[in-house]
Amino acid sequence: MIKKSGAARVGLQAPEGLKRATPIVAARIAEETGAEVIISGDPCFGACDVDTRLSGEVDLMLHLGHAGIGEEPEKVIFLEARMNEDLRGVVEKAIGELKSKRVGVSTTVQHVHKLDGALEVLAEHGIEGLLGPASGRIKYPGQVLGCCYASAKALDVDEYLFIGTGQFHPLGIALATGKRVLAADPVTCEILEIDPDPMLRRRFAAISRAADAKSFAVLVSKKSGQKRMELARRMMALGEARGREMFLVYLDNIEPDRLLNLGARAAVSTACPRVALDDSAKYSIPVLTPPEFEVLVGKRKWEDYLFDEIDDI
Amino acid sequence: MIKKSGAARVGLQAPEGLKRATPIVAARIAEETGAEVIISGDPCFGACDVDTRLSGEVDLMLHLGHAGIGEEPEKVIFLEARMNEDLRGVVEKAIGELKSKRVGVSTTVQHVHKLDGALEVLAEHGIEGLLGPASGRIKYPGQVLGCCYASAKALDVDEYLFIGTGQFHPLGIALATGKRVLAADPVTCEILEIDPDPMLRRRFAAISRAADAKSFAVLVSKKSGQKRMELARRMMALGEARGREMFLVYLDNIEPDRLLNLGARAAVSTACPRVALDDSAKYSIPVLTPPEFEVLVGKRKWEDYLFDEIDDI
Repeated sequence: MIKKSGAARVGLQAPEGLKRATPIVAARIAEETGAEVIISGDPCFGACDVDTRLSGEVDLMLHLGHAGIGEEPEKVIFLEARMNEDLRGVVEKAIGELKSKRVGVSTTVQHVHKLDGALEVLAEHGIEGLLGPASGRIKYPGQVLGCCYASAKALDVDEYLFIGTGQFHPLGIALATGKRVLAADPVTCEILEIDPDPMLRRRFAAISRAADAKSFAVLVSKKSGQKRMELARRMMALGEARGREMFLVYLDNIEPDRLLNLGARAAVSTACPRVALDDSAKYSIPVLTPPEFEVLVGKRKWEDYLFDEIDDI
Repeated sequence: MIKKSGAARVGLQAPEGLKRATPIVAARIAEETGAEVIISGDPCFGACDVDTRLSGEVDLMLHLGHAGIGEEPEKVIFLEARMNEDLRGVVEKAIGELKSKRVGVSTTVQHVHKLDGALEVLAEHGIEGLLGPASGRIKYPGQVLGCCYASAKALDVDEYLFIGTGQFHPLGIALATGKRVLAADPVTCEILEIDPDPMLRRRFAAISRAADAKSFAVLVSKKSGQKRMELARRMMALGEARGREMFLVYLDNIEPDRLLNLGARAAVSTACPRVALDDSAKYSIPVLTPPEFEVLVGKRKWEDYLFDEIDDI
């Protein structure tokens, strides 16, 4: 494909877990095509995080691991990472814990090609498994992203089965839909019913800690798929209208020392929702999502808590 | 000035030491001009490190602290930080340690406006103080940068007096000129004769440690004033011609975990020379400057060791 494209300069980007393979892949591409290969050395957190400075300098850019979110330049090619784990075993194990006969089924891109097997196992036990549609940044039916649960929300079901690793995605489904979520991990084979309450309590505490802050940093990400400048402006205006001092900060990787050096006592992050929700232990100051800041200033009721999603930029 | 320019969006960038002031400056600008102010939240290491993604989104960009290096877009305005320390006292103290009657005088941008006083004190003691000319990235006579000693090298003297803080700049003068350098610190009032030998020994050790590495990462900085892609290509070709595996890595902030994640066992950095020379203790692998890599592959003799400078990109 690279040969065919005639690319003289090729960019190569991968998330941290796959980065160690990039020098080998680069050597192989250079050998077979004669192209100059440039590896992106900065951290990469998703398809929202295409190295645009590198892609601007090459003819073709290979982004390993993630599925595209439909916003990237044409020359960026996503080579999705797929896991070979069969999902049948863990779904079989989850059956006994399911309470409904119609269940929404969600997963991440690594496993989407194995969802048919999961639906078959459910059908064998008389359970209808439903995949929400692809749309916007969701490329495959049933796929969810840390920042987007549109496929799950589109379903009219009372229960979801998330198949994949980690707790962030199923927690996102639970908070985005308000429904029961069972998480089935195909690697550890563990089945877990998701309880969103501990996280909600932590978020309530974060909002409370930020309540007295006089000034707020409003964080805008430079990453192409996380940059929500208009939302940031709305947060600026909302805070200022409520008598808070607000300042706008534009950055690439959001790290604790960045906020410390600015002297910020509280922040609203319009970047990836995981920054505020998943990394909160890293920060010494409360970092809120936009809907949480709305709760803080009284524009939204706590009862109407909204999980922050990036639907479109 | 901002009002006059009619800028609707203003960017604000500062090095870490001045960053805490940016929210206050931003509020002041917004209040007085009505402009939207966006603070650059990423680290900033010099005029070589203009936040080009932010400057691309604003009408006017204020860069605090550094002097321009003559390569930046017109809309970037440098507001240089100047220190009020008088240099007379510390120069007076240095007089007894000087060996020559003609001395090159160098400093960093914070003190350039006080150099006249320094030259006067020297003259009072019968010593001629000479300032090397501004040129290229050097904006003021007598100024040196961590990456550029052109002003010092232009002088035909046997001895230099560096007035300023830290050891990196006077060490750079010593290595770039091969002459005796006395460093006078106007803050602590300490006088120190620079001995480049310990650093040269450390660099020799780094080259030795890298000697057996099969593969080298060649690092190219994304920072506008540190990006030396052509030099990186020459290093790639040089290493490959000598049978080493070379791979090209493009990154913004060079940090130890970036190199670790790539699995690199040795690196050649074409970014700011301080990355290799000043931060070497941070890295578990040897990181060489381009002239050091030339020594490693036998293209340059150790006796002809060259301090890495960025004369032009």
